[in-house]
Formats: sequence, C-alpha cells, structure tokens
Amino acid sequence: MLLATSCDFEFDITEPTPFILMLRPRSGAQQWISREEYKLTPSIPAFEFTDTYGNLCQRLVAPRGRFAIHTEAEVMITDTIHKAPGAPFVEVQWLPNEVLSFLLPSRYCESESFSRMAIEITAGKLLGYDQVAAIEDWLRKTIRYLPGSSDDPISAIEVNKKQSGVCRDLAHLGIALCRALSIPARLVVGYNYGLVPMDMHAWFEAFVGDRWYVFDATQKEVTAGYVALGFGRDAVDVAVYNQFGPAVYPITQQVSVELIDSGE
Amino acid sequence: MLLATSCDFEFDITEPTPFILMLRPRSGAQQWISREEYKLTPSIPAFEFTDTYGNLCQRLVAPRGRFAIHTEAEVMITDTIHKAPGAPFVEVQWLPNEVLSFLLPSRYCESESFSRMAIEITAGKLLGYDQVAAIEDWLRKTIRYLPGSSDDPISAIEVNKKQSGVCRDLAHLGIALCRALSIPARLVVGYNYGLVPMDMHAWFEAFVGDRWYVFDATQKEVTAGYVALGFGRDAVDVAVYNQFGPAVYPITQQVSVELIDSGE
Amino acid sequence: MLLATSCDFEFDITEPTPFILMLRPRSGAQQWISREEYKLTPSIPAFEFTDTYGNLCQRLVAPRGRFAIHTEAEVMITDTIHKAPGAPFVEVQWLPNEVLSFLLPSRYCESESFSRMAIEITAGKLLGYDQVAAIEDWLRKTIRYLPGSSDDPISAIEVNKKQSGVCRDLAHLGIALCRALSIPARLVVGYNYGLVPMDMHAWFEAFVGDRWYVFDATQKEVTAGYVALGFGRDAVDVAVYNQFGPAVYPITQQVSVELIDSGE
Amino acid sequence: MLLATSCDFEFDITEPTPFILMLRPRSGAQQWISREEYKLTPSIPAFEFTDTYGNLCQRLVAPRGRFAIHTEAEVMITDTIHKAPGAPFVEVQWLPNEVLSFLLPSRYCESESFSRMAIEITAGKLLGYDQVAAIEDWLRKTIRYLPGSSDDPISAIEVNKKQSGVCRDLAHLGIALCRALSIPARLVVGYNYGLVPMDMHAWFEAFVGDRWYVFDATQKEVTAGYVALGFGRDAVDVAVYNQFGPAVYPITQQVSVELIDSGE
Repeated sequence: MLLATSCDFEFDITEPTPFILMLRPRSGAQQWISREEYKLTPSIPAFEFTDTYGNLCQRLVAPRGRFAIHTEAEVMITDTIHKAPGAPFVEVQWLPNEVLSFLLPSRYCESESFSRMAIEITAGKLLGYDQVAAIEDWLRKTIRYLPGSSDDPISAIEVNKKQSGVCRDLAHLGIALCRALSIPARLVVGYNYGLVPMDMHAWFEAFVGDRWYVFDATQKEVTAGYVALGFGRDAVDVAVYNQFGPAVYPITQQVSVELIDSGE
Repeated sequence: MLLATSCDFEFDITEPTPFILMLRPRSGAQQWISREEYKLTPSIPAFEFTDTYGNLCQRLVAPRGRFAIHTEAEVMITDTIHKAPGAPFVEVQWLPNEVLSFLLPSRYCESESFSRMAIEITAGKLLGYDQVAAIEDWLRKTIRYLPGSSDDPISAIEVNKKQSGVCRDLAHLGIALCRALSIPARLVVGYNYGLVPMDMHAWFEAFVGDRWYVFDATQKEVTAGYVALGFGRDAVDVAVYNQFGPAVYPITQQVSVELIDSGE
Repeated sequence: MLLATSCDFEFDITEPTPFILMLRPRSGAQQWISREEYKLTPSIPAFEFTDTYGNLCQRLVAPRGRFAIHTEAEVMITDTIHKAPGAPFVEVQWLPNEVLSFLLPSRYCESESFSRMAIEITAGKLLGYDQVAAIEDWLRKTIRYLPGSSDDPISAIEVNKKQSGVCRDLAHLGIALCRALSIPARLVVGYNYGLVPMDMHAWFEAFVGDRWYVFDATQKEVTAGYVALGFGRDAVDVAVYNQFGPAVYPITQQVSVELIDSGE
Repeated sequence: MLLATSCDFEFDITEPTPFILMLRPRSGAQQWISREEYKLTPSIPAFEFTDTYGNLCQRLVAPRGRFAIHTEAEVMITDTIHKAPGAPFVEVQWLPNEVLSFLLPSRYCESESFSRMAIEITAGKLLGYDQVAAIEDWLRKTIRYLPGSSDDPISAIEVNKKQSGVCRDLAHLGIALCRALSIPARLVVGYNYGLVPMDMHAWFEAFVGDRWYVFDATQKEVTAGYVALGFGRDAVDVAVYNQFGPAVYPITQQVSVELIDSGE
C-alpha cells in the first residue's frame, strides 16, 4: 500500500536552540520512500548523520523567532504485517551479534525487574512469538491506552504502577517484559495509518525465529500501515526531536497519514 | 543555492535483471535534500542499504519489458566551493583512520605507477593543496576532455596514454597522481549545475589540511553547483547503476540540473 | 608505562549458560596491547564480535561444572593522565556526531533529573573541563566510596540518596551530572594500577575541548595507570560479563595489576 | 586444533617511515586467539584501528635505525575446513548487503575481463560451490605455483598471461573468475600450517549457499590449518604491511606455524 505521511512542528524560539531531529523516514527492507520533503522555515543550514542504529538524524540550530519544520513522504509498504505464531524463541547463543544489545535493560525498560511477571503472563505459551503475543494481549487488556497524554516518558515500572499510558508507555512495558524472557525487543517510532486520534506513534518489535516482528498493544488488531522513522532501545534513542538548552515546546504539532493507493 | 536535479533512465529488459543503483543523494555536511522523488515504473519492490562509504544504494530486480527509473531532488548547497591554497600536506601518520584507504591503488587508479610523473607535475609547489591544484591544472591542459563518450571505464594508465577522456577518466588520473604523492583522493559522482552538455558528472576530492576539497579538471573554473550521489575509491565503488546478468543498456538517459534559488 | 594485568573468574555452572564477556582490552589511541592471553577451562568454543562502541566482546556457552576464565595482558600506556583545566565546553551543535548519544539519559544515569544540582555544584566555574572537575571534586567530598560492595548496579538517583557507593556508582552519578550540563559523558570499565583493594574498576570520561578526558572520584589524585576494557553509556553497556538464564555468581574473582616498567 | 604462529620482520630504516600493519589476528567466528604477543623494537608508540572490513590495523612511524616487529599467537581453529559440494549459487538479489562489494572488479582482479573464460572453466558444473571448486581445480592444474617469488602484486590478467605465480596471484585469478560468474569472492591473508616453504600465505574465499568457503589452489588438498590476519577485495586491502615514503624492504622476514595440539 502507498501512504502519504506528513508532520508539522512549530516552535517559538527565544534563544538559538540546537535540535537533533529524527524525521526523515528511511528506505529499507520494510518500506520504500518514493517521495519526500523536508522544509525548514526560515531556511537554515541543517546537517544529517546516521546514528549507531542506522537512523537518519538531522542537526540544526533553530534561530530566534517562529521556527517551523515540515516533512512529508510517500511511502510504499507491504499490505499486511507479518505474523508468525509458533516462531521459536532463539537461545542467546544463537542470536545475531547485532541483536544482543536489545536484551539489556535501558533507561525506560528496567527489564531486570520483570522476570516473575513476564513468566506469569506467558505461562503455558510456546517459547518465542507466542510469548510476545501473550504479552501484547496482556498489555491490551491491562494497561489503559490514553492517547494524547504527552508528558515526559516514564519507565516500564512506573507504567505498570499507573496501569495506563500513551503508546510509548505500553511499548516500553512490552519491551521490558520481552527482555525479561531473554527475547530481544526494541522501540519503533513512526506513523500508523488509521490511528485515532492521529499523532506520532510508537510500537515495539521483538526478535523471534529469524527476524523482528511488529507488536502494538494500542490497537485491537495490528494489521498494516506502519511507517518507521527510527528504532532503538527505548524512547531515549528515538526521540523525533531532542532539544538542548532551555526547554521549548511545540506551539503546533500536526501529523497526518493518508492512503494514496491500497495496493489492491 | 537551491538546485533541482533530475535523472531518468529507461531500459528494455528481456529477462529479470538485478540492479544496484546509487541515485538517492544523501543529506550530509555539504548538502541538504529538501525534496526528493524516486519512482520506478512499473512500481516494483526495492530495498535500500548503506554501503561501507555511507552511500545510499537501492536494490531491485527489473522485470521483463520497459523499465523506467525517475529520480528528482531539490538540494541546498553552499554558494561557493571552498578552496584553500596553502592548505598543508598531512603526513600519513596524522591522517584520520577513515581516510587511509584512499591512499591505496584501486581498480582504475594504479597510483603505484605514477610517482615520477606526480613529482614532475607538482615540482616547486607547496606540499598539499597546491600540489593537487597543480595536478588539476595539468589535467586541464593536457588531457582532452571529451564529454559524452561513455564506454566502459578505463584506468588512469590508459587515460594517460590516450590523452583524452570523459569526466570520470580525468578524475581517475587526478586521483592516481594524488595518491602517488601520499595525498588521499577519492572519486565523487553526481550532478553539476551548468555542465555542458548536461549529464551525470564525476570529479575528485583530495584530503589536505583537515578536510576533503573538490577538484574538477573538466571545468575551466570550479565554482559551485556540485551535488554528490556517492563517493568511493574509483568508478567501481560509485556506479550510478550496477547491473548483473546479460548486459542491458539504457535506451534513454536524461539528466537535468536547474537553479531554483541562487541564494543571493 | 608498561603494566601487567590479569583477571580470573571461576563459576560453578549447573546448566549450560550463555555468557557475553568483555575481557579483552583493545589497542587504540590510548593503550597498546603488547601481550595477551585469554584461556577458558575447559577449553570450549568462543566467538568474538565488536559491539557498536567498538568494544571486543566474547560469546560462549559455559558447560556444566567448574568453568574458569583467565585473561592477562601487558599494556603500554602513557605515563600521565592528560588534564586540561580551562578546556572549553563544546556547544551541542559543534559536537562530533559520534559523541551525541552520550548526552542522553541512560539506564543508570537519569541525567534529566540532575539539572539544578549540576548547576549548583558547578556554580562559578568556567564552562567545560572545570565544570567536570568540580563535579569530580564534589563526588569525592560527598559520596562515600565503598570499594568491594558489589551488588547489582543502582542508578544515579539512588546513589545520590544513599550518599555512598562503589566505583561504578560514583561514576554513574558523575555522568548524570555532566549530561545534565550538556557535556557528553561515558562510563569506562577496566583496570587501575594501585587500586586498593585491587579489583575491576570503573571511572568516567567527559568530552570537553576536542577529546575525552578521564575523571575518577574514587581516587584522591588521578594520575596514570588506567587500562580500559570497554566503554559505553553506563554499566549496562560495559558489563565485564553478562550471563543469561538462571543467575550464576563467581566463586572466585581475582584481579591483579602490576608495574613491569615505569617508563622512566 | 591449536596452532602457534609467529612472524618477524626487521627493517633498516634510514628516515622516519609511517607503516600500517595488519599483523594481529582477530578472534571471530572461525578462530579464537588464546594468546598473543606484539612487540616492537625499539618500543615505540603504535595505534590500532579497525578498517572497513573489520581487520585490525596498527599504525606507527618507524624511527631511524634497525626496526623489528615480532608477533606471535596461539590460535584455536576447527579441525577441518568446511566444504559443501552442491551448495547453490545465490542470485544477486538474495545476497546479503555486506557481500555485494565483493562482486565488483578491484585493483588486481579485473573480473569484467574473465566472463568467457569463467564460463568455459565451469562448463557443466552445478551453479555455486561446484563452479568455484572447478575454478580452484583449473588453477591448480594450469597456473604453476611458485612459492617464494615475492615481487609487487600483479593482476589477474597478468597472472593468466604468465601462467605462474605466488599464492596471492593464484588467489587473485580465482577471485576474478568467481566474480565473473557473479559469485562474491575475497582475498584472505594469514598463516597456513604445513605450508612449504613456510611463509605468509594468501588464499581466497567464495560466498555460496549462505556463507564464505575457503579455497586454495596452491595446495593439493585443502584441509585445515588456516589462520586469517585480514580479508578484503584483493591484495591492496590486506597488505600485512603498507609503508609510505621511500621504499624500505625487510632485511629479515620469518614466519612459523606450529601445531600445539591436534585436537584429537
């Protein structure tokens, strides 16, 4: 299917402010960018680099005054999300090298504290994909999804206490539970077609069988429509913007995802 | 300045043919991509990866029949090419690690054969930038630039015998001469505003002082207007397309570069 | 100076246990490994890879029974630790790309919570090296260094509450304080000549001026004698061993560092 | 099996000479370094980095006078070289990204010139492993192996004219023939137990099925005993030493490989 995504941020900048953005989706094995736009107003110098995960990051210093970022893209993705019930757990010694760091705890995913809980939630399940599906299902039933609340990230332990959260929070708890079972898990940030209300989205992926699979406890059913902007261990690694110096907040933030062609 | 580039290829494919393309310019320290389009007709799956130089490469299998590639971009670049007469030669032991491999001979740049010639051409010059400028100047005066002739690449030795060549050939000879003096040099492929006749272009960069500088012996004066698609040791690394299986040739190939905004 | 380091671990393994070790020091710009030994008893297959930080990591599955790891090395290091009072703070927009991720919070360094405290501790100091030196000094005076206590890592917030900790804890708090000031900081794990009692050690580095500098609040005076095994955002990234499955603990763990040649 | 390797170079240096060495074998999936020594006499500063292939490289400036390099290692390797008759050819579109550059011509492997010859040599063979085995066999029968002749490298075309060569030459021709068939191939430099006369050795690897396989046309039978120092596209990438400035030649060069434990 072919999707059109767009994202607009506007800031009132009171003193020159360095930003690191992650707003350029990247063509890869899962998505193909056929059109793309990235406009800064005023037009200022910006530099791009690739982080250690392979995400495209943009660096700039926003000048005083109104500062606007506009990005849009046409992205071709597969029509369905691949699911693989029964895909086996991979013992640590057989995991690819580049996947190993996604087993470890991270800022918002204190996986070392979730062993017992993860075992309980997945009791009786086949090791691997089915464990992750059980975690996703448990999240869906247990943690109330509150779209739109957009405070600073909280960690999996706090999410579990609060029993509610934004998409990122559910994903963080899912990741912590997977890692507690020695299943590599990572956070993905991007767009999701059909999300209500429309906004940036976050979900998680788990490595079982021989690849990463998408999981998203905020949706009743995970079908297609996911466009990734970046992935990493947790929200620290994949902020769509990191800003340094005195805090500035977007005065407008608007996201849209439209279907151009269903591919059918 | 803001440039609009476009590139069109059309092929008649008689059997499914794997391609590796290098047609997506990348935002970096020197250029910012503010708009971009990459269309394949028919629309087929394509995958992107980053090669060891950091270039974006696209993989696909062209199906039987007419196959068209269209890319276009709006690229913001600096208004002038930086020149640095006097920038010093960097002794090998002080070169950054990542620059070292550009000292070695490569497929089309047999630098080990050019020591004497490089010393003669640069006699009396300050070590560093001025040596490279002398090489560029010598190429301009000595090797006849024949735009448009587009055979298979030939190596620096052959270019030197032939005393003429396309842009890539002049660059290969320039690179071989630089490396013969222990100056790192690399080939860049991309677009050049104002090139006559308009086509894909190739030039070279040399590392002196503390950075890479642009050199282009095909132009009387090297001003601005360079948009890079990729860089590498020589043409092997930066083919805009590599095709495998029985050879296919473009039935049309069209390049354009237009000025959108001079930045003045 | 030339140091001889050694490290011995022994485990009683009750079921086959995957390990990821970080026990091979790496030659780099700061240290040169002139001799090295890495023995496993029983001798079992082990595989090495490089993590995203460039650290050498060893993977293996420890078999049932007594399992011993012995490593030793002769390492040439500079005779003094470089200090640079006055080295300036680098504004975020001028930091090298590869340093940026060391500005962000991590599992054990919740830097976002330390802004006010960091400003207070460094009040009146020149921005840059002198701020970090003030942090190191404050740690030395404030947080009681308790060598040998070796529980699971605790985070900077917890260290600050407890007002005491092992080397790793002091480093984590130092890192959190630096990052709160937008100074990149990272954890280093390795050997330190003259450490009392001798053990594996952890310290931190901060990026000011144009390079990383060593800081260590556990020592009255930071002179020379540091041999790095690995570096990363915090203890998550640089465990000398990560073990998966039911927890196993070393029954013996022994570290030695001896001076072979003072270089004087 | 456990092998002890050693390598000694001595040079008479008349003016300070930068070197880049590739003399530290690396632990990986195929070999485990259990002991290692790397001595420079006089003892001078040396720095290590990893090239784009993952090889460990050492940089130093040899001072005036006698300069000696001594390296030795104990390396655990598998007891047999894996062979896989029937392992299938991998179509270009299914090759892993990181393998693609080994399809292209390189300085000493002008693969674009060997299509017809490669087809003839492998006529009637199953595509994949069996083609490479046919190439190895053809080299063994056709190109006279002249150990010890150690001139500057010559290219595959020249080797084919000369019909004789050192180990590196046979490997270059083998690589060119493989690539001409769209089979990725790379040069490996290192040690070979039982080589007569003992010296540094070079062989090649081809990617078929799902991995790299060892081929060596200099040996009647390729069994075990290979310890790699580095790999790359051809000899340009894996010189055990690259030296810059006026040429210096080793006054002694000595290599030994001994069996410590046959593993049986």
